[in-house]
Amino acid sequence: MIAPDHIRAIAPYQPGKPIAELAREMGLNEADIVKLASNENPLGVSPKARAAIADSLDELALYPDGNGFELKSAIARKHGVGLDQIVLGNGSNDVLELAARALLTPGSSAVYAQHAFAVYPLVTQACGAAGIEAKAKAFSHDLSAMLAAIRPDTRIVFIANPNNPTGTLLDADALHGFLKKVSPEVLVVLDEAYVEFLPEARRTPSVEWLKEFPNLLVSRTFSKAYGLAGLRVGFGLAQPEVADLLNRVRQPFNVNSLALKAAAAALDDQAFLAESKRVNDAGMAQLTEGFRRLGLDYIPSWGNFVAVRVGAAGTVFQALLQKGVIVRPVANYGMPDYLRISIGLPEQNARCLAALQAVLGK
Amino acid sequence: MIAPDHIRAIAPYQPGKPIAELAREMGLNEADIVKLASNENPLGVSPKARAAIADSLDELALYPDGNGFELKSAIARKHGVGLDQIVLGNGSNDVLELAARALLTPGSSAVYAQHAFAVYPLVTQACGAAGIEAKAKAFSHDLSAMLAAIRPDTRIVFIANPNNPTGTLLDADALHGFLKKVSPEVLVVLDEAYVEFLPEARRTPSVEWLKEFPNLLVSRTFSKAYGLAGLRVGFGLAQPEVADLLNRVRQPFNVNSLALKAAAAALDDQAFLAESKRVNDAGMAQLTEGFRRLGLDYIPSWGNFVAVRVGAAGTVFQALLQKGVIVRPVANYGMPDYLRISIGLPEQNARCLAALQAVLGK
Repeated sequence: MIAPDHIRAIAPYQPGKPIAELAREMGLNEADIVKLASNENPLGVSPKARAAIADSLDELALYPDGNGFELKSAIARKHGVGLDQIVLGNGSNDVLELAARALLTPGSSAVYAQHAFAVYPLVTQACGAAGIEAKAKAFSHDLSAMLAAIRPDTRIVFIANPNNPTGTLLDADALHGFLKKVSPEVLVVLDEAYVEFLPEARRTPSVEWLKEFPNLLVSRTFSKAYGLAGLRVGFGLAQPEVADLLNRVRQPFNVNSLALKAAAAALDDQAFLAESKRVNDAGMAQLTEGFRRLGLDYIPSWGNFVAVRVGAAGTVFQALLQKGVIVRPVANYGMPDYLRISIGLPEQNARCLAALQAVLGK
Repeated sequence: MIAPDHIRAIAPYQPGKPIAELAREMGLNEADIVKLASNENPLGVSPKARAAIADSLDELALYPDGNGFELKSAIARKHGVGLDQIVLGNGSNDVLELAARALLTPGSSAVYAQHAFAVYPLVTQACGAAGIEAKAKAFSHDLSAMLAAIRPDTRIVFIANPNNPTGTLLDADALHGFLKKVSPEVLVVLDEAYVEFLPEARRTPSVEWLKEFPNLLVSRTFSKAYGLAGLRVGFGLAQPEVADLLNRVRQPFNVNSLALKAAAAALDDQAFLAESKRVNDAGMAQLTEGFRRLGLDYIPSWGNFVAVRVGAAGTVFQALLQKGVIVRPVANYGMPDYLRISIGLPEQNARCLAALQAVLGK
């Protein structure tokens, strides 16, 4: 096969180790394993979503609605946008990839920050475009450095806010100032996968900004606060011209029927969202308090995860696996001393802290 | 936005009209609508798949297994291939797109037949590659013409067998001879979405051929005979080098958890597959007998659909919609005189034939 060099050079995304896989490898019971490796919702699925799924099992032989009318209508109502401003994705990963495929070709480039979400360089490389990594400042996106990194051939700037795996958050005014300085011909993809975990006062009015910036794409997901990671659904919001471009490269049935139904039902489940945030806030306090007790540095995080400095993180990761605790090493993010730990339920956080204490011999 | 011309020129895939959409537009009851437009399974979902889904609803907050271990193991057992020979897709549409994205760039080309499945030109164009359409012979792929169409810059040849929307089937010996003549550096994507509807004697030993041809990719789907179109799952089989290339551009969680579970359960549901084939054979006889009665020509089909010649098909399509019957016009396949009608249950087929008779004034 004559494949382009940029395809052969791709190092595929490394997901968190699935519970079943660890159980197979270590001969453990699945029930004894704690997975805090993929920023999943420890509360499970929104009950409204679960009910919507159970009601839809008889329709599975039919193709999904390729236009996603019902879900798009719900999103349009909630966010005050038109149906033509919405792009549905098979998870927000799909939205990020659609942006790349619509705009990037060999000979163009995309800008993202050091320590930013791994999917940005991956989708850039898969399109044969050049990836430009702008140095971070204290693990946070450095917007000045990102602005300076934009070249004439740059078509996309990816910004994660909050960022995964560092948990850092940009100031809304700084971000607004950045958008004003970026050429309107460069798409700014603002990835807000973790926005629901932010206090109201720290949320960026990103959807409002769509009116001002024809080159802004806001990406959201149902995989985190909504607890639907297994079903794969996310969406992008933008002005119609950008949404139309992404929809041109979208697979006609990229989002499955149950995901469409579940997401539409979950979207307004305020009680579930509030409980997700409450559990996350409490778990974040529990874990970071534990880190302080163990004398471990961590990066203050606005997400449903936290990066903690443990020294030789690959070794610590393996030792934690032996104890049935799955977390995420982030050496591939240029952070070989850190582990990223997702916020779990109180007993999961306690299991993780106890295992960490034992492994580190503290 | 500076988007490449080949992206702006994409005319997105036109799916069959969803029942809910027609009901909204025409003020009809959904229960009164017959949809024979998307080659779906009129029996619904395999009961084994349905049970597997119902058992998995509590795991939906967790990401799917990105490696699809359980489903791949089931496929490997059934088809006698290694796990490293399998690529899972979000429907086989995804598999076709992965092949294109792994191999096609601006400056390369792909070959497909006139009247072949619309996704081949779409994924080719989305990669900025040139699409080369080889003339068909009596609506069937003309393998000599396809061979002659291959250029030095050709990276993929797409073959649909049976083809959608014509239903034509290639002879196994002719196909084998074709594979022997294609350069081993050109990937042949053999799309067998409808293979389960073929009588045993007419099935191509395509999976056997993988040992002989390192440039063969066999594509299969769970959307048709298995009745899982709404969940989105398909797979590709190839030698490990090709599978590895496609997996490099695959989204890490492209197949959702319920699709993985349902497909693994459905794979060996021989009773359901046999019943699907029986209903399809009977429905095909019912529809084609009806066409003959109405004096309508049709293309003999090996799929779960049949293309029938009705004259000005766009007008007939609209008139059928008024009567609550959704079929598929195929003018975009260069067949403006034809409608493609999926095989339904006996009463659905009868509704369709009666509506056709009324509309055509026969």
